[in-house]
Amino acid sequence: MVLRLTVAYRGTAYAGWQRQENAVTVQQVVEEALSDLGGSPVRIHGAGRTDAGVHARGQVAHLVTPVELPLRALIHGTNHRLPTDVRVMEAARMPDGFHARKHALAKRYRYRLFDGRVVPPLEADQVVAAPPDLDLDRVRRALAVLPGNHDFTAFATAGGSHRQPVRRLLAASLECHGPELHMVFTGRGFLRGMVRGLVGTVLEVGRGRRSVAALGALLLGRPRTEAGPNAPARGLSLERVMYPSAWHPHARALGGSTDSMW
Amino acid sequence: MVLRLTVAYRGTAYAGWQRQENAVTVQQVVEEALSDLGGSPVRIHGAGRTDAGVHARGQVAHLVTPVELPLRALIHGTNHRLPTDVRVMEAARMPDGFHARKHALAKRYRYRLFDGRVVPPLEADQVVAAPPDLDLDRVRRALAVLPGNHDFTAFATAGGSHRQPVRRLLAASLECHGPELHMVFTGRGFLRGMVRGLVGTVLEVGRGRRSVAALGALLLGRPRTEAGPNAPARGLSLERVMYPSAWHPHARALGGSTDSMW
Repeated sequence: MVLRLTVAYRGTAYAGWQRQENAVTVQQVVEEALSDLGGSPVRIHGAGRTDAGVHARGQVAHLVTPVELPLRALIHGTNHRLPTDVRVMEAARMPDGFHARKHALAKRYRYRLFDGRVVPPLEADQVVAAPPDLDLDRVRRALAVLPGNHDFTAFATAGGSHRQPVRRLLAASLECHGPELHMVFTGRGFLRGMVRGLVGTVLEVGRGRRSVAALGALLLGRPRTEAGPNAPARGLSLERVMYPSAWHPHARALGGSTDSMW
Repeated sequence: MVLRLTVAYRGTAYAGWQRQENAVTVQQVVEEALSDLGGSPVRIHGAGRTDAGVHARGQVAHLVTPVELPLRALIHGTNHRLPTDVRVMEAARMPDGFHARKHALAKRYRYRLFDGRVVPPLEADQVVAAPPDLDLDRVRRALAVLPGNHDFTAFATAGGSHRQPVRRLLAASLECHGPELHMVFTGRGFLRGMVRGLVGTVLEVGRGRRSVAALGALLLGRPRTEAGPNAPARGLSLERVMYPSAWHPHARALGGSTDSMW
C-alpha cells in the first residue's frame, strides 16, 4: 500500500532533507525510524528537497510498504524512534500510484523576519533580524513583480543542475504578524536555493539598494552573480505541499483532517 | 546610576536564573557579559528566580553602575557577548533606589500546552502535549478558584524555604491560540515551583481525576504531597514583571517603549 506522511522538522541540525553520503539528513532519520519500526528497510520519497538548516512544517513524503499497520500506530511508533526535532505529523493511506514529488501541484514557503531591535532568543533559531532601513512599501512592490512564469536562474544556487530553470511562481506576499514580517511564496516548483535568493534580493530592493525594475530584469534568466545574497537558512520553512483533489486519501488521514490538503 | 534590564532567554540549557556554585545560570552569563563589557565585575539583581529549564520573555533585573554608557551601546555590547539563547531586550535608566525584586508589583507567567496529536518540532522546546482527555470547561472552572490570598504550600517545591507561604494570585485564565492552550497566571508573588504545581494539578481536574472542590481545599496550606505533579519546565515562561507607575524610567527606554511597563 502507499502511505503519505506529513513531516515537520527543525532543520538546524540537519544537512537538509535529501539523503547524503557523509551528513545526517531528515530523510535518513525518518527512513531509519520507519525501518526500525517495520523491521525491514524502508525508502521514502519527499515532495522536494530542503537545504541545510531550512525547517519544514509540512514536508510530504510517500512510501510503498507491504506492512499493514494502523496509521495511529505508525505515527506513534515512528515518532517514538525519531529525534525530538523531527516528527511525523500526519499519515494517510493513498491510492496506488501516488507520488509525493511527481503529483505535487504547488508548494508554499514562509520566510520569517523580525522587525525589532533585538531578536527574541525563543525564536532566534527560526527568525532573522530585518534590516533596520527596510521600506515595507518597496518590499511589497518588489514581491509583486515576481509571480508568473520566469527563468529564476539569477536566484538559484549556482552549480545546481536545473534542467528547467523556468518555474511558475503563483504568489509572493508580505504578511505582518506583530513584530514579525513574513514573506510567503507559493509556486509550482522552486529551483534549489531560489526562495533564499529571492528574499535576499527583495530585501535589497526594500532597503533602496536596488530598484524594483532592476529586480524584474533578473527574471529573464540572468546569472546568479547579478542578484542579491542568499538570506540565512534558519528563517525559511517549507510550510505546505498541495496536491490535486484527485489524490484523495483512502481513509480519513490521521494526525490532521484530510481537508488540510487539496 | 541604576539601570533596569529586560532579559529574555530560552531556559533549556540553564540551571535557572539564579547564580549557583556548580551549574551555569542565566544570571551568571548576563553578569559575565556585562562585566566583560564594562571591564569590572558587575552584579545584577533579578525580579525573581526561574527554575531550571523555564524560559523568560520579560525577566527584569537591575544593576548599579558608575559607568555612563549609552543604552543602545549597552544593549548591543552585552548581546554581542551573550550566548544566542539569552538576550537583553530593553534597557532603561531608573531613579536611584529602584530595585527589581523589591519594587515588583506583579509577575505574569504563561504555560503553553499543545492540544493536538503530535507536538510540532519547531515548538517542542516550549510547549507540552495536552492530555487527550482534557475537558476545557473543567480547566476553566479549576483556574477560577485559584485567585485570591491563599497558602500555596501544596503547590510549591518541597524543601523550598518559604517564610511566607501565603501569596496573592491576581488572575488565572485559559487562552486558546489555534491548537495551543495557554494557562496564564498573574500574581503578586509566587512560591518556588508554584506555577508548575498549579498547572499539573489543574490538568488533573481537567481530566476528571480530581474535583474542583478538592483543588480549592488545597489552597489552605495542605502539604505538597496532596497536590498533583509538577508540569514540565519547558512549557513555562516568565512573561512580564510589572512595577508601580511611580518607577518611571528617567528617559525613554531603549529596545521597547516605556509604556510596556506600568
